[in-house]
Amino acid sequence: MSSCGVLVVAGTHGNEVNAPWLLQQWQANPDLIDTAGLAVQKVIGNPEALRRRCRYVDRDLNRCFLPEQLEKGAPGLEFQRAGELLRLHGPSGEQPCAVAIDLHSTTAAMGNSLVVYGRRPADLALAALVQGALGLPIYLHEADAQQTGFLVESWPCGLVIEVGPVPQGLLNARVVEQTRLGLETCLRALDQADQGLARLPDALVVHRHLGSRDLPKAENGEPQALVHPELQGRDWQDISSTQAMFRAADGTDRGEAWVEGEIPVFVNEAAYAEKSIAFSLTRREVWPVQPTWLPALQQLVSAA
Amino acid sequence: MSSCGVLVVAGTHGNEVNAPWLLQQWQANPDLIDTAGLAVQKVIGNPEALRRRCRYVDRDLNRCFLPEQLEKGAPGLEFQRAGELLRLHGPSGEQPCAVAIDLHSTTAAMGNSLVVYGRRPADLALAALVQGALGLPIYLHEADAQQTGFLVESWPCGLVIEVGPVPQGLLNARVVEQTRLGLETCLRALDQADQGLARLPDALVVHRHLGSRDLPKAENGEPQALVHPELQGRDWQDISSTQAMFRAADGTDRGEAWVEGEIPVFVNEAAYAEKSIAFSLTRREVWPVQPTWLPALQQLVSAA
Repeated sequence: MSSCGVLVVAGTHGNEVNAPWLLQQWQANPDLIDTAGLAVQKVIGNPEALRRRCRYVDRDLNRCFLPEQLEKGAPGLEFQRAGELLRLHGPSGEQPCAVAIDLHSTTAAMGNSLVVYGRRPADLALAALVQGALGLPIYLHEADAQQTGFLVESWPCGLVIEVGPVPQGLLNARVVEQTRLGLETCLRALDQADQGLARLPDALVVHRHLGSRDLPKAENGEPQALVHPELQGRDWQDISSTQAMFRAADGTDRGEAWVEGEIPVFVNEAAYAEKSIAFSLTRREVWPVQPTWLPALQQLVSAA
Repeated sequence: MSSCGVLVVAGTHGNEVNAPWLLQQWQANPDLIDTAGLAVQKVIGNPEALRRRCRYVDRDLNRCFLPEQLEKGAPGLEFQRAGELLRLHGPSGEQPCAVAIDLHSTTAAMGNSLVVYGRRPADLALAALVQGALGLPIYLHEADAQQTGFLVESWPCGLVIEVGPVPQGLLNARVVEQTRLGLETCLRALDQADQGLARLPDALVVHRHLGSRDLPKAENGEPQALVHPELQGRDWQDISSTQAMFRAADGTDRGEAWVEGEIPVFVNEAAYAEKSIAFSLTRREVWPVQPTWLPALQQLVSAA
């Protein structure tokens, strides 16, 4: 039995309902997910937003894990909840966890995927183990001053499992099964790291964040064109440089030329409209696995 | 120029945002949709719900067109709005309309489709003309005491154009284009009927409503299983009698055997969860076009 606490969070966004349903079913049937003997803490990230079936009440909880803001007691339901989750399950919390797995869904056709924030060796080791087992794609989010305060960044190691496409507020059996598979694979990888049985692949394939694009907007903020139908659903795919980005209501194409080699992710994610993001752009990179990664993860999961 | 007013309604449900965007773009560019010389009134069905990006505020507006309730001034924002729409654009309203086209979207994979309520000859004539032009499927909703008070039933002739799949609250270029095509085809059909140029096909293919099924529920109302992944997205399709209806989180199949010949529609529509509908069942029927249908439509569209 490992001494590493693992926090599993569902419903960080209250309108992403599949992971909360999975957690509820898991509560009723403890055999549903094999925890590989790990001490797992299961929580609903934002219970009030889940009750209201909205993403958040005052502010996106997954942008509230900002140490400075939390220290000075920033107001609003989500800053309060972020502080509470850290007091309860943070690395020095009442039931301390070294690893956080945050379960999300998206309206974009992301399939079953991981999001990693920055380049912490333990995160990269865990991501490499999961990619080695399932082959799923990884979005490496970094260096975006517009987007900070993600939940998993407040734990020594953490990943987002991101599954789609699924509408907000809608239960979907395939999305639940993909989430279950991703989570169980993470837990098995952590246990193998703890037991010294983990073997990393030679390379990690990441899609490194470059930036985001918004729809063409009128002066009043209304979209003048939408994500091009030939681009919709093509997350993770190579896009031809002749592909238009947007299409207007009269059928004409809009937007600049596609840059060869830039790969879109989160194409038409419903919740990102308010963040002025129609899609993000990434570059696919193959990184040799570094010898420092696995020891960093092992040290975390084996620590008392 | 016909003397028939045609009411085009978008945003009867405030979280179905594609038709409202189309109307806004149409307002800015009057050439976007060919009205064939008809006197078209364009309205947002539920502006307050659209502003809040929710289906409704107090009650589903598309279940509020109940003459008895409206007569006695039933309370709530949507009953008020239903009365207002009838005073403004009803058959005896300030800007009278004989025909209502109500534009909806759905999270179900309905494609571009029509919904007809009951068997009014003018509705069937219009539906047959649109099906003859585009070949799209028709859901004939009737004889369901649980579901009454639909908007189009308060006009002498009316259809719903229903397009999906698209998440609630999300703009999608293909859904906009399908909606535009369906609407323009309706307007052209009405103009042809007015001018005596309409030619109906020999037969109308309808999917007649039989009933609806809900997810298996626990005593506290929580779903114990979800729509089966092999059933998801199979709206309008023939389903094998070996197909299970539902799947539990542990991967086991649930629900009774599928009845051969029953065809599902509105499979996993997000808004129907609160109506306890996981999907509806229909039977595909081929109806010979009746000689009374076209004259009924012609009389309406040509009346002063």
